[in-house]
Amino acid sequence: MAQNHLLLLPGDGIGTEIMAEVEKLIAHLKEKGLADFSYDTGLVGGSAYDAHGQAISEEDMDKALKADAVIFGAVGGPKWDDVPYEVRPEAGLLRLRKDLGLFANLRPAICYSALADASSLKKELVEGLDILIVRELTGGVYFGEPKEIIDLGDGQKRGIDTQVYDTYEIDRIARVAFDLARTRDKRVHSSEKRNVMKSGVLWHEVVTEVHKDYADVQLDHILADNCAMQLVRNPKQFDVIVTDNLFGDILSDAAAMLTGSLGMLPSASLGAPDANTGKRKALYEPVHGSAPDIAGQGLANPIAMLASFAMALRYSFEMIELADKLEGAISSVLEEGLRTGDIMQEGCKKVSTAEMGDAIIAKI
Amino acid sequence: MAQNHLLLLPGDGIGTEIMAEVEKLIAHLKEKGLADFSYDTGLVGGSAYDAHGQAISEEDMDKALKADAVIFGAVGGPKWDDVPYEVRPEAGLLRLRKDLGLFANLRPAICYSALADASSLKKELVEGLDILIVRELTGGVYFGEPKEIIDLGDGQKRGIDTQVYDTYEIDRIARVAFDLARTRDKRVHSSEKRNVMKSGVLWHEVVTEVHKDYADVQLDHILADNCAMQLVRNPKQFDVIVTDNLFGDILSDAAAMLTGSLGMLPSASLGAPDANTGKRKALYEPVHGSAPDIAGQGLANPIAMLASFAMALRYSFEMIELADKLEGAISSVLEEGLRTGDIMQEGCKKVSTAEMGDAIIAKI
Ligand SMILES: CC(C)[C@H](C(=O)O)[C@@H](O)C(=O)O
Ligand SMILES: CC(C)[C@H](C(=O)O)[C@@H](O)C(=O)O
Repeated sequence: MAQNHLLLLPGDGIGTEIMAEVEKLIAHLKEKGLADFSYDTGLVGGSAYDAHGQAISEEDMDKALKADAVIFGAVGGPKWDDVPYEVRPEAGLLRLRKDLGLFANLRPAICYSALADASSLKKELVEGLDILIVRELTGGVYFGEPKEIIDLGDGQKRGIDTQVYDTYEIDRIARVAFDLARTRDKRVHSSEKRNVMKSGVLWHEVVTEVHKDYADVQLDHILADNCAMQLVRNPKQFDVIVTDNLFGDILSDAAAMLTGSLGMLPSASLGAPDANTGKRKALYEPVHGSAPDIAGQGLANPIAMLASFAMALRYSFEMIELADKLEGAISSVLEEGLRTGDIMQEGCKKVSTAEMGDAIIAKI
Repeated sequence: MAQNHLLLLPGDGIGTEIMAEVEKLIAHLKEKGLADFSYDTGLVGGSAYDAHGQAISEEDMDKALKADAVIFGAVGGPKWDDVPYEVRPEAGLLRLRKDLGLFANLRPAICYSALADASSLKKELVEGLDILIVRELTGGVYFGEPKEIIDLGDGQKRGIDTQVYDTYEIDRIARVAFDLARTRDKRVHSSEKRNVMKSGVLWHEVVTEVHKDYADVQLDHILADNCAMQLVRNPKQFDVIVTDNLFGDILSDAAAMLTGSLGMLPSASLGAPDANTGKRKALYEPVHGSAPDIAGQGLANPIAMLASFAMALRYSFEMIELADKLEGAISSVLEEGLRTGDIMQEGCKKVSTAEMGDAIIAKI
């Protein structure tokens, strides 16, 4: 059994608690002889800022670059609302994405059937929902230059951000989406605002071109505003949605909330395959945030974090069977009626973060 | 009774049919001695392109600049998917917004109680919903320069758009939002992505500053991705949302769809008050699009168009009573069970565009 090396970055708020469940799982897998992971831990976000004035230290960046996968909790909280822009908690996450070249962000929006009632949408619209949002993660308005505030004098300032996409960036994310669609329902919606944005015109053009290599996959183009509408109206019409960094941020959050399963949703951020080894850099994180209001009380739902670890097993370590087993364990504890507070329903049993983690791990 | 001058721009698709109902209403108001409007009509969007190769002619732009208000239908359709970017149908609308200086876009997302069942959200979450989205409309990534596609050689292109906001642009839209909140529930959510965008940092700073003049209004800041989530989770938590051009485009469409009343929702786009006359330039348009698939068949729902005319009565002509009467007429035909196809429900009576228009007008 190969020794696979991880970097665990719990981050802020509930990050620590949910990451503790990952550590338990790793120990369990080793004990059972199912998988052997070694790992380091590091600081990111507000906790890194408190420790050394940066949203992630050079040392931890170095560890991230060397790890086979980074397992990430969550960052941010009111405590750091007023720290300088360059060292705000999010800067740690953005640097990891950029320096690791994690251009492909996979965000499944699935509705756990045990939780279909929890959605704000009518049950029949979300039951069985299974969308995969493929978000470009290292380009667009997140990283384009100039990005600055200029003082114009006379009390006037100018805030500038730049949305930039090159052909190759759109090409590679489109291929990720089409490849994944082939393993699913073979349908891709590409979303942009080409009626207003030149980057959207190029996006549309390049995706259309790449599609020629994927004639077996159906491609539809949908404007981002209409996509937001259609997600609300009838989310099941979608299979894979590929979109840019900013639209992906908003659309994937809306889609996650639609499922009623927000505390359950994982994500994977992947780089390009290494030219020699074929290995991709990767970071796995829950879609939810750091929830500072409930941190430290054992109330957090560890499912999204554990499901993110399942994505790591699947995409970074080709442990498909083990990933299936972990995802199955999550479904079955939900079927059995175990619930953390955020998803509590009548007739179910309320459990703590650790109890939920234990119950899932016990099934593996 | 003053003579008030309008420019009617029906545009494309169902635009013509729904504008015909406005013309009937204007004739009715005159006949009854309730209001006296004169008007011109013009072309915009694909129909303008077909007529003279531009998305709006200089002559019609001139008429728009001189009118007391522009009443706008909808633009676009597959017929013009491949026309050059500069003369695509949307360019006509964008030029009107920019050249008329219509920086404040008011988009009410209300749920007509007769239609609460039509929402994809659970009825209790949308019944009585009444949000006002105040979208900045002449700045941001829609108009910032550079906005271009550069050929980099070697098969690579670069698409660039620029998000730009100056202090004064944020200041004036914030004031519109706070002023309107005072006439409502006195709560404003300001939405941006200050954790990623410098324009968002400035937005947050300026809105916070302007708020000092509105101590009686509650201000909350919410990141745009979280705002999309919260709209889906529990839309009734919002009163007024103020946001930039691009986020406003997406969030207002999502909010409109949530109500289940998309074919019913109007919008107003307003300029700054003239230094001498105090009059604002203004354009009124339905939130829905040109629906080319059902155009020309008498199937379109004219309610959003007539409700937009009610906004014109309210905001451009201070005919508050008449606006109330028109809005009341719309509610009561819905209560009586009249429905166009898009909102048809069991037990209701299906009517055509003209029949719906007639029924509403008959009540005034
Ligand atoms: C924390 C923040 C910078 C981040 C983003 O905007 O990408 C988050 O919202 C996400 O979606 O992962
Ligand atoms: C037609 C299009 C240019 C427009 C926009 O993006 O503003 C539309 O979506 C809207 O919201 O009015």
